[in-house]
Formats: sequence, C-alpha cells, structure tokens
Amino acid sequence: MLKKHRGFILWNCYKRAGDDGLKNTTDIEQDRQYMKMALELAQKGMGFTAPNPMVGAVIVKNGRIIGQGYHRKYGGLHAEREALAVCTEEPEGASIYVTLEPCCHYGKQPPCVNAILEAGIRRVIIGSSDPNPLVAGKGIRILKDHGIEVTENILKEECDKLNEAFFYYIQNKKPYVVMKYAMTMDGKIAAYTGESKWVTGEAARIHVQKQRLKYTGIMVGVGTVLADDPMLTCRLENSRNPVRIICDSHLRTPLTSKIVRTAKTIPTILASSSKDQQKIKNYEEMGCQVLYVPEKNGHIDLNRLMELLGAARIDSILLEGGGSLNWSALESGIVQKVQTYIAPKLFGGEEAKTPVEGKGFPDPVSAVLLKNSEIIRLGDDFLIESEVKRNVYGNC
Amino acid sequence: MLKKHRGFILWNCYKRAGDDGLKNTTDIEQDRQYMKMALELAQKGMGFTAPNPMVGAVIVKNGRIIGQGYHRKYGGLHAEREALAVCTEEPEGASIYVTLEPCCHYGKQPPCVNAILEAGIRRVIIGSSDPNPLVAGKGIRILKDHGIEVTENILKEECDKLNEAFFYYIQNKKPYVVMKYAMTMDGKIAAYTGESKWVTGEAARIHVQKQRLKYTGIMVGVGTVLADDPMLTCRLENSRNPVRIICDSHLRTPLTSKIVRTAKTIPTILASSSKDQQKIKNYEEMGCQVLYVPEKNGHIDLNRLMELLGAARIDSILLEGGGSLNWSALESGIVQKVQTYIAPKLFGGEEAKTPVEGKGFPDPVSAVLLKNSEIIRLGDDFLIESEVKRNVYGNC
Repeated sequence: MLKKHRGFILWNCYKRAGDDGLKNTTDIEQDRQYMKMALELAQKGMGFTAPNPMVGAVIVKNGRIIGQGYHRKYGGLHAEREALAVCTEEPEGASIYVTLEPCCHYGKQPPCVNAILEAGIRRVIIGSSDPNPLVAGKGIRILKDHGIEVTENILKEECDKLNEAFFYYIQNKKPYVVMKYAMTMDGKIAAYTGESKWVTGEAARIHVQKQRLKYTGIMVGVGTVLADDPMLTCRLENSRNPVRIICDSHLRTPLTSKIVRTAKTIPTILASSSKDQQKIKNYEEMGCQVLYVPEKNGHIDLNRLMELLGAARIDSILLEGGGSLNWSALESGIVQKVQTYIAPKLFGGEEAKTPVEGKGFPDPVSAVLLKNSEIIRLGDDFLIESEVKRNVYGNC
Repeated sequence: MLKKHRGFILWNCYKRAGDDGLKNTTDIEQDRQYMKMALELAQKGMGFTAPNPMVGAVIVKNGRIIGQGYHRKYGGLHAEREALAVCTEEPEGASIYVTLEPCCHYGKQPPCVNAILEAGIRRVIIGSSDPNPLVAGKGIRILKDHGIEVTENILKEECDKLNEAFFYYIQNKKPYVVMKYAMTMDGKIAAYTGESKWVTGEAARIHVQKQRLKYTGIMVGVGTVLADDPMLTCRLENSRNPVRIICDSHLRTPLTSKIVRTAKTIPTILASSSKDQQKIKNYEEMGCQVLYVPEKNGHIDLNRLMELLGAARIDSILLEGGGSLNWSALESGIVQKVQTYIAPKLFGGEEAKTPVEGKGFPDPVSAVLLKNSEIIRLGDDFLIESEVKRNVYGNC
C-alpha cells in the first residue's frame, strides 16, 4: 500500500491479517486514533457525570466521522445515544468507538446496546470493559450474539485511568480517595510559623483547582477550617464546586466560618460523632448536613464515613487534609492515590509541619508503599502521582 | 548532498555558509558528535583529576579520528597532550575537539596551547571557556594569533556541567558543596524510631556511591557518626574513597568508631573548635587530621571551614548530613547544589526526622530557593537535582 506521510512517499509495511485474526498495523493505528478522539470527548464530562463514569463515543462510516458524543451530565443521554442522535448520515453499517463497554441494563437511561443494535452498527470498538464484576462482558456478549464485530481493549490503559475513581467506586461502594498535599523539597507543608502562602507556584495551584472539579467531594479536618477558614470551592470558570466534607469529631467548626456561611449554596457535610442536638440543629439551619459517624480511637471512624459517603453517591474525594488527618486516612486504609506537589525551595525547621504526621510507621518495611508513580512538571514545581500499593491494613 | 541514513536515501538540506560565517548544519552536527565523544572521554577521569578539571580531547583529520585522550589523573598528562601522543597519523592540518579551553600557563604540565601549535593543528573546537576570570580567553587568543581557526561553545552547557564543581572552586577557592538526602514521599529521612534502612532502593544507593567517587570530600556531623558508625567510603570497583570530613565541634567522635580506626588508610579530617591537646593527639595518632575551626553560634563556623578545605585543595564536598547540619549549611550559604532522592513510600510520624531541621525560615518568601531542577528515575525512586538560587545570606 502506497501512502503519503508527512510529504514522504513510503512503502507501508504491515502484517497481513491471518487466521490469528490480527489486524494490520494501519487498522490498529486508526482504531487508536478514533479511540483517542472518544477519550477527549469523554473528558469533557469531567466533574458532571458522577456517580456515572465519563464516556465518549465516535461513529465512523467509510472513513468519515458521522457522529460524536459524550456523557455530559449525570442523568443525561449516554455517549452512544448522543453520538447516534447527531449522525450526519445513516449509521447503518458504521463502526462505533466507545471508551467504555456499552451498558445493557436499565438505569436513568435505557441500555445502550439496544440503541447500537437498532441503529444497525456493524462494529463496536471498546476501550475499558464494564468494571462491575457482576455485569462485565454482558454488554459485549449481547452485541456478539447479534453478529456485531467487537474489538476490545483499544487504549485500555488510558480509558481505565480516565474512570479510575468510578471503577473503584462501582466495585467497593466507597469513594476513591486522593490524598493531595504540596510540600517543599525538604518535605514541609508550611514554615515553622505556620505560614504556607505559597508553597507552590501558580501552575500547580491551577492544577489543584482542576482536581477539585474532577473529584466529587473535598475533605479536610476541622483543624484546617479553624486555621485557614477556607472556602474549598473550585474557582475555575464554568465549573462546579465539590461537596465539602469536614471531619469534625466534636463539632468545633465555627458557625461564623466561610464554609458554614455558604452551606446553603454549596453542599457541606460535617462528619461528627457528636450527638449534641442543639449544635446539630444550628448547623442544619445554616444549610449544613451533619452526618453521624461512630468514634474510633478518639476520632470519627473514617472507614465507616467512607461507607456512608459511598451510600450518598459520593464516588470520589480529594483529601486536602493536614498531617494528622492524612495519617488517620492512611492508617485507616481509605487512601487510593497520593498527589505530591513539590516546590523547589527549602523551608527547614524542626517544628515545621510535614504532609503526614501522627505516630507514623516504625520502620521502612511497614510503611505505606506507593506504585505506578508518574511525574509531571507544573511551572517550576513537580507533581508526583502514585497509587497506594499496600499499607499496614492490607489495602490491596 | 546525498547521504544514507538508517537505510533510507534522503536529500540532505542545509543552510549554506554565507558571509555571516554560519557553518552548515551538517558541520555543526559533526562538531557536536565529536565533542560528545570528547565529553565521554573526559568523564573517565571522574574522581581522579581534582582539583584539576575533567577534560577530554578528540583529534580528527580528513573525517577520521586519529587520536583521543583525557586527563586521567591529577598531575598526569592533559587531555590534548594525551590525544596527540597516541595519534595514528601526523596531526598536521587536523582538528582537535577539547571540552575545555586549552591552558596557556605552566602548572604541573607545560601549556597545552604550545603542544597544539607544535603539532600543526589547523582548527580547535572548544566546549567550555576557562572559568578562571583572570585567564579566560587567553588560550584562545594565543591560538588565533597563530592563525588557528577556533570554534567555541560547542555543547557548552554539557561541558560546563561536567566541571561545575571545578568552575566554582577555581573562582571561589572554596569547595562546591552538594547537599544530598534521601527521603520518603512525605519528606521523612527515617521512621520515628530512627530506622532508615532503607529509604530508597538499590539503584538510588548505587547512584549515591557514584557521587562519593565524583566529589572529593564527604561531610557529615558527629551525630551521624554516633548514631550509625558509618564508613563513608565509596564501594564501587576501581574507585577511590572521598576524604572524610566530620563536623565535630567538641571532639565527640569515638576513638573506637570505624572512621577513626580506618583513618590511617582513608584520609579523615575532624573539623573542631576544641583545643584539647590530649584529645587532638589521640586522634592524630590514629591517623586523623584535626582541623581547628573557630566557633560561631555554638558550632564550628562552616564558612571558615570551607576556606580551610579549599586551601587544602578539596574542591568539592558531598554533604550527607542529618537535618541539623543541613540547616547550618544552608544558613551559612555554603550549599551550591541539592540532591533530593525521593522514595515512593510514606513513613508518617510527627517525630520522624526530615531532611532540613534547625529553626527553619519563617515564611515562603525568605526560604532557600532552588533552580534548574532536573529529575531522573532510579528504579522506583526519583532524584531531583537542583542548584541553589538564593538564600537568606545572598548566596547568588
């Protein structure tokens, strides 16, 4: 096959599809390109689909894109139906690229496999499989049973990563927790005076704002509220605010704090073991939801809190705690991912605060191990993102 | 010009040299290639040339390499003379690539410019200029005055970096100090119990061993000797040990410590403000050199120590101190570079040690700022290398 590529004329060599069903490299590359488009579409739903996943779809016929769509908002059309709805040509005989296995059950929307079958689609190309172990593969099976060609695992890693929070949530019924902190190159989150404005530069701070959009909830301890009186909102344009969750065992959050004063417009949960009805009533009148969580070792039981938040359809949380809450979260095994922002500066100070405090692990062997670390530069700063590999309480 | 490149036949397009004296891109690329070889040769001298720089040289005639050399060892032949000595053809009319401007003064060796002139070299291609502001450019001027074509600044950045310690030393007469520490992703250098074996993995630890070869001295505080009883040697094959420098204000280093017991074979300096003659005699009998350094704020004056070590021809130091010594070193403004090894694990612990302790800076604005950070992966760990940009005492 003679193809033009960047102005050069090259002979395109590829493996011929044989009995092993291998596609030639051009076809695979093309599948990847369309899936990449579907991925980019999917990301447009970031922050608005929870507790549903982000999904993108691209419909291709005779080498032409005839329809595109994504899941815009929880409760709205699924990506496949959106793409079918806007097709510029009859979709019969076309291929559909979809980042996640099409659903086959009735939820807020009828099953997408039905729509695909009705449209006469010939081939379905899928990124991630349905992560729910009870239904995984069922959508694919139905499609195949109807004679549709199905190709799986195209850009699987990227598609899986896009919805890692949703995948965890659907399988565990608890929110995916991302522990985030910004520290200096010598591991301090503030100077010894408590001064922490600013550890990182602007690019890193904008990145944090994007995370506040990406994850459904944001969680801090009451100590942070008392010290900084923060808003914990997402200040990006055309955004939405995360649900604010304050771990406040003894209900010490001031009624005059910015968070309480804005609780009527921004969802706010106080997680507490207090049963003081008058206090609770005061907060509720201000618009806060007070969530009772039993106590464990003098604090609210974070594992129980995660179950309660999961039941309340909070699928993911950005944990922006200080050292004590971070330690409790790690010790409880609720943390799935760690975002470490590192600024190229040194604060020094024996008394300066560090990202994880509490008692700590006694030796390197029993420490929390991280895996799959990825690093990016944000201006002069670095961000290292890692998954939690294992901790003392056997968290996968 | 028709060239074969990786099996493809391509038309090679390039700018023609015009009145502006621009080389065509092929020539520049060729200069870079030969300079890269010279750089690789130079690095072979790592650990053995101090307080001289590492230098490599490649001699090319009619497109053939006819001689190569590098400065192997302090006091030995310079790179240019070594390359000339092994030429497989008459070097008359050849080009010589040398990573550093050839010397024009008599030191341990006669000037290299003489050797170049005598050999009838036609063109000299140089990486770094002589960093000594008193002589910079003089070697080049002599060459030009003799009608030799000189090209400067080829791979300048890489050549400068190779000898950053030497360049600093020649200009400041004090050692270039590299502060090195290994910490967890939450900024701890040990668990709260003091346990620190191991924070990082093997690849990072081997990298540290290479640094011990690269820098002339290694420095720790007496606290580290008391806690760990380390050897502070370089355990690589065909290596040499760094000069061990212990900051020991009050001479508390045990006579039974490994360092003192091996001081007869491995150079060891105790930097102290003590004038206790009996103690000093005991250490000296064991082979240690006791260096008197006046006291400042209850510790030895680190700036004065650097002057004394510089005078003793120690051009570079790897500072492997704990948090207190690191803080004093930063506060004194003696640190030029910071190596932060980061392990993907979390120790937690309010009491766990961090890389820089002491009092600390009161706010982000007055902190030590780092610049030109570079990051590499070492197994599962990361290494961030940064230069010190500025600190409270105005260190450039």
